[in-house]
Amino acid sequence: MIIDCHGHYTTAPQSLWDYRDKQVSVFDDPKAMADLMQPRISDDQIREGIEGAQLKFQRERGTDVAIFSPRASTMGPHLGNEQTSLVWSRLCNDLIARVCSLYPENFVGVCQLPQTPDTPPKNSAAELERCVKELGFIGCNLNPDPSGGYFKSPPLTDKSWYPLYEKMVELDVPAMVHVSGSCNPAFHATGGYYIAADTTAFMQLITGDLFKDFPALRLIIPHGGGAVPFHWGRYRGMAQDMKKPLLTEHLMKNVFFDTCVYHQPGIDLLLKVIPVENILFGSEMVGAVRGIDPETGNYYDDTKR
Amino acid sequence: MIIDCHGHYTTAPQSLWDYRDKQVSVFDDPKAMADLMQPRISDDQIREGIEGAQLKFQRERGTDVAIFSPRASTMGPHLGNEQTSLVWSRLCNDLIARVCSLYPENFVGVCQLPQTPDTPPKNSAAELERCVKELGFIGCNLNPDPSGGYFKSPPLTDKSWYPLYEKMVELDVPAMVHVSGSCNPAFHATGGYYIAADTTAFMQLITGDLFKDFPALRLIIPHGGGAVPFHWGRYRGMAQDMKKPLLTEHLMKNVFFDTCVYHQPGIDLLLKVIPVENILFGSEMVGAVRGIDPETGNYYDDTKR
Repeated sequence: MIIDCHGHYTTAPQSLWDYRDKQVSVFDDPKAMADLMQPRISDDQIREGIEGAQLKFQRERGTDVAIFSPRASTMGPHLGNEQTSLVWSRLCNDLIARVCSLYPENFVGVCQLPQTPDTPPKNSAAELERCVKELGFIGCNLNPDPSGGYFKSPPLTDKSWYPLYEKMVELDVPAMVHVSGSCNPAFHATGGYYIAADTTAFMQLITGDLFKDFPALRLIIPHGGGAVPFHWGRYRGMAQDMKKPLLTEHLMKNVFFDTCVYHQPGIDLLLKVIPVENILFGSEMVGAVRGIDPETGNYYDDTKR
Repeated sequence: MIIDCHGHYTTAPQSLWDYRDKQVSVFDDPKAMADLMQPRISDDQIREGIEGAQLKFQRERGTDVAIFSPRASTMGPHLGNEQTSLVWSRLCNDLIARVCSLYPENFVGVCQLPQTPDTPPKNSAAELERCVKELGFIGCNLNPDPSGGYFKSPPLTDKSWYPLYEKMVELDVPAMVHVSGSCNPAFHATGGYYIAADTTAFMQLITGDLFKDFPALRLIIPHGGGAVPFHWGRYRGMAQDMKKPLLTEHLMKNVFFDTCVYHQPGIDLLLKVIPVENILFGSEMVGAVRGIDPETGNYYDDTKR
C-alpha cells in the first residue's frame, strides 16, 4: 500500500473560502460574527472537488491513501483572533472528516490547530483531542510560526510547546511542522516561507534537547526537510561543534522528512543522505506546484515516480 | 588560480568586538559615543589572526585568493542606529583594507554596508563607493533583512533597493546577499537564518522582474543558494506556474551560487542542477562550521576537495 503522507484539501468549494473572507473581515464585531452563517457544503460538492483532482491523481499515479489535512496556506492563524481560529479550524477539520467518510479507502484525516500568535500552544490541545477521539484523525499540522512570516514564536524546543506535545504523546499522534500563508511581503508562502520554516525548525531541534523530554514525540518536516538534506554536512557539523550527539541519535529517532521534492536529483540526494526509515512518501498534491515539467513530461508533484 | 569567493574576517582581535559591544551599549548617549575610542589594532595583531587561520588553510588546501569581507554575523545592522552602523561599517571595512594591503596576493576586499532597519538602502551607496574607489574593493555584502531575523524589509525586487543597485552597476561590482546575526530566538543565525534568507531571496527574485530593470546587476546567493538547488524542480515549477521565463533566462544570467555546502552529495547535486557558469567556488572559511567531518576525516568547510 502506498500512503501519501502530505495531502491538503485545496479543492474545497468556493463557499468555504468566501465564508473565511467574511469571517476574517468581521472578526472584531461580535454581532456580525454571531450572524455569520457557516457555509452549507453538500456531499456532491465535496465529491466534485476531490474526484476531479486528488482522487483522479491518486488513481493515475497509483497511490492508495492520502493523509489529508486542511489547505495549509489558508489555516491563517495570524488572521482574526482565538475564537475565529477555533471556529475556522473546527469547520475545516469537520470537512476533512466528511472527505474521509465519503472516501474511507482513500483519505485519512489530519487536523489543523486553532493556533494564533497570541495564544499558547496548550490552547490547541482540546481540538487535537476532539479530532483524534471523535473524528478518527491520526495527527495534526503544527504551525511553528502563527504570526504568518515574522517568526515571533519561541523555538519548538521552548517549554510553552510542551502541553501540546504531551497531548500528542498521550494520543500517540505525530505532527507535521507546517506554516500557513504569509502576511510578510518578504516571504512568498509556498516558495520562500514554507522552505525557510522547515529549515529553521530543524535547526531549532538541533539546538535544543526536545526528544530527551519527549522520546515518543514524532515530528514530520515537510518539503523534503526544507534545505536540510542539501546542507546535511552543515547540520552534522553544527551539531558536532555544539557537542550534541550525532544527528542520527539526537533527532532522527523522532524526526521524519517527506518526499515533496520536485525533481529527481533532489529526491536522489534525499535518499542518499537521510536514513530511509526517516523518509515518508509525500507529494503535497494538489498544492504548491501544479504544472508539468517540460524536462520530464510529468507533473512536478508526481513524486511517486 | 583558485579564488574563494566567500571569506569573512572572523579572526579579528578581541579589541574589535569589545569596541563593538561598547558602541552598541552607548549608541543613544551622544556624550559616551563621542568619548568612545576606536580600537588600536596593530599589523602584528592582524597577521596573528590571519596567519593562524585563513592563510594557514589557504596554504593547506591549495587555494590562492579569498574575496574577503567583515564577519557576517557581527555586521549587526539591527543594533544601534544609522550613525553607529556607519562608524562600525567604516571601521570593519578599513580593517579589511589593511588585511588586503598586508597580504595583497591572498585577499581582495568586499565591504559591509551601513544598513539599518529604518534607513533606505540608498543611504549605503556612499560607503560602497568609498570602499570601491578608495579601498579597491570589488563588491559588497547586501543584507536583505537588516532587522536581524524579523524580515521587515521589502523584497529585493522593491524599488527602494534600486538606488543601491544603480550604484553597484555604475561601479560594476556584485553583491553577496548575506544576512547578519539573528536577534530572533526562532532563528539560529548560521544554521537557520542564513539558509532561510538565501532561499527566500531567490524566491523574491523569481516573483519579480528585477533583471529586466538591471540587466548588468550581479547577485551571489551564498551557502550554495540556500535550499534552492535541492528544490530546483519546485522553483522551476513555480516560475512556470507564474508564467515567468525559464529560470535560466529569468535569473541565471545575474544570480550566482557559491559552493558552501559541506558534504559531497550536496556539492554533487549543486553541480548537477545549477549551470556551472553560475557556480562560484567558496568555503565560508573560517566560519560557520569549524570541525572535522568524522565521515571523511576532512574539515567540513574544505569545499575545495
